[in-house]
Amino acid sequence: MITSTDNPRIKAYAKLKNARERKRTGLFLIEGHREVARALNAEVAVDTLLVCDELLGPEPIETAGSDVLEIGAAPMRKIAMRENPPGVVAVARQFGTSLSELHVGEDPLLLIVEEVEKPGNLGAMMRTCDAVGADALIVAEPVTDIFNPNVVRASQGALFSVATAVAGTNEVIGWCRKRGITVVGGYPAASTELWDASLTGAVAMLVGAEDAGISAAWDDVATPVRIPMAGAADSLNASVSAALLLYEAKRQRR
Amino acid sequence: MITSTDNPRIKAYAKLKNARERKRTGLFLIEGHREVARALNAEVAVDTLLVCDELLGPEPIETAGSDVLEIGAAPMRKIAMRENPPGVVAVARQFGTSLSELHVGEDPLLLIVEEVEKPGNLGAMMRTCDAVGADALIVAEPVTDIFNPNVVRASQGALFSVATAVAGTNEVIGWCRKRGITVVGGYPAASTELWDASLTGAVAMLVGAEDAGISAAWDDVATPVRIPMAGAADSLNASVSAALLLYEAKRQRR
Repeated sequence: MITSTDNPRIKAYAKLKNARERKRTGLFLIEGHREVARALNAEVAVDTLLVCDELLGPEPIETAGSDVLEIGAAPMRKIAMRENPPGVVAVARQFGTSLSELHVGEDPLLLIVEEVEKPGNLGAMMRTCDAVGADALIVAEPVTDIFNPNVVRASQGALFSVATAVAGTNEVIGWCRKRGITVVGGYPAASTELWDASLTGAVAMLVGAEDAGISAAWDDVATPVRIPMAGAADSLNASVSAALLLYEAKRQRR
Repeated sequence: MITSTDNPRIKAYAKLKNARERKRTGLFLIEGHREVARALNAEVAVDTLLVCDELLGPEPIETAGSDVLEIGAAPMRKIAMRENPPGVVAVARQFGTSLSELHVGEDPLLLIVEEVEKPGNLGAMMRTCDAVGADALIVAEPVTDIFNPNVVRASQGALFSVATAVAGTNEVIGWCRKRGITVVGGYPAASTELWDASLTGAVAMLVGAEDAGISAAWDDVATPVRIPMAGAADSLNASVSAALLLYEAKRQRR
């Protein structure tokens, strides 16, 4: 059992909170009982399960054959992002998110999110994709990588159940064009209200960055729709906008 | 100009990050240029505008006749919640949120949120109420008070434009009954899908706490509706659920 925060393995794991270190190693951290269970259930490759008996609740942990390393509360606090660290954190291998390997069936419903920055928003969008039964989430030009511990946490494990691809905007546009997928984007100044747009068939709903909105690259590609807003034009949170777009598509596809 | 973080005024203002201190003094903090501008615009009573020239961007500040106190970057960092503190923070007086003083017109659309804990969720719900044009937000049994700096921040100033009342659950139930307001609650196990419920007339959409859901006090009051979910039952964020409920009501009321 490791109790020192100066232990080299603990230091190496704690560094995975850093995007550069995740990129260098291909590893990432999954914090929390529920999140780890969902990852194991989805057959994410877990290298090591870090377990702290002192912080662990009464629920048993499934290890699914992973290596288990017992650590003290101090190293767990060093590794975890949460203020109240959980009793279990998994060190897992990043899985493939190549758009060329994303396969969707007929008439898919997709979410494309461009240049998203806030980990909480990206995680919430994953939860929404899971809930609405979207076929995939495509993350274009991410500012925050999808393996950021705060994304994993905010997704509550939906990262492991929703097919997710990451690519540049031009690649995403080409991919949609090739498959005849209609891209419908949320624009505050669009003349068509969301509810009057046709959202059946092969459709990708597109939301832009929290501040800048959808980039100009989509101008000739996306069909603009407007979520009616009584207040300020920027009054909806990006993940709320994504949910409203996806659920209206879902309603029309019943 | 105050540059020391030990200055008694600075210490007193920084304490307003604490719920007890807000309750004791009746004051609260408003961080950021946009948020302060919206508060002044809504005629929130601002006691003092704390301004830090070093952190201020090029945009001019409207003071609307408030007392201005210039402070250095160190005291601003002590008072602000954000990691990158803004150039302006207002010390303002809390306004009334009594349910008995909340007046709504005919056939109002309301949001009731019960036992909400996460400031980000409560703030996002305020933004959504603003966007959808809801008549009021009723916060029942709040775990986090609406004047929490993180609520103010997440609301991006919608706290100042949306009529908001705070009360106990039983008081809210009595208030709705007396006015003939139909309460429609989001329950994961309801047999009626949201889209099949009638949401016209005088309607309050009800969402529960992040984990526990809607309390049993509503069992004989609320009409249960279900947001269709393909994934786990708890897969939608509380503020996303609120937005889906409110916007479906909005769609039906066009």
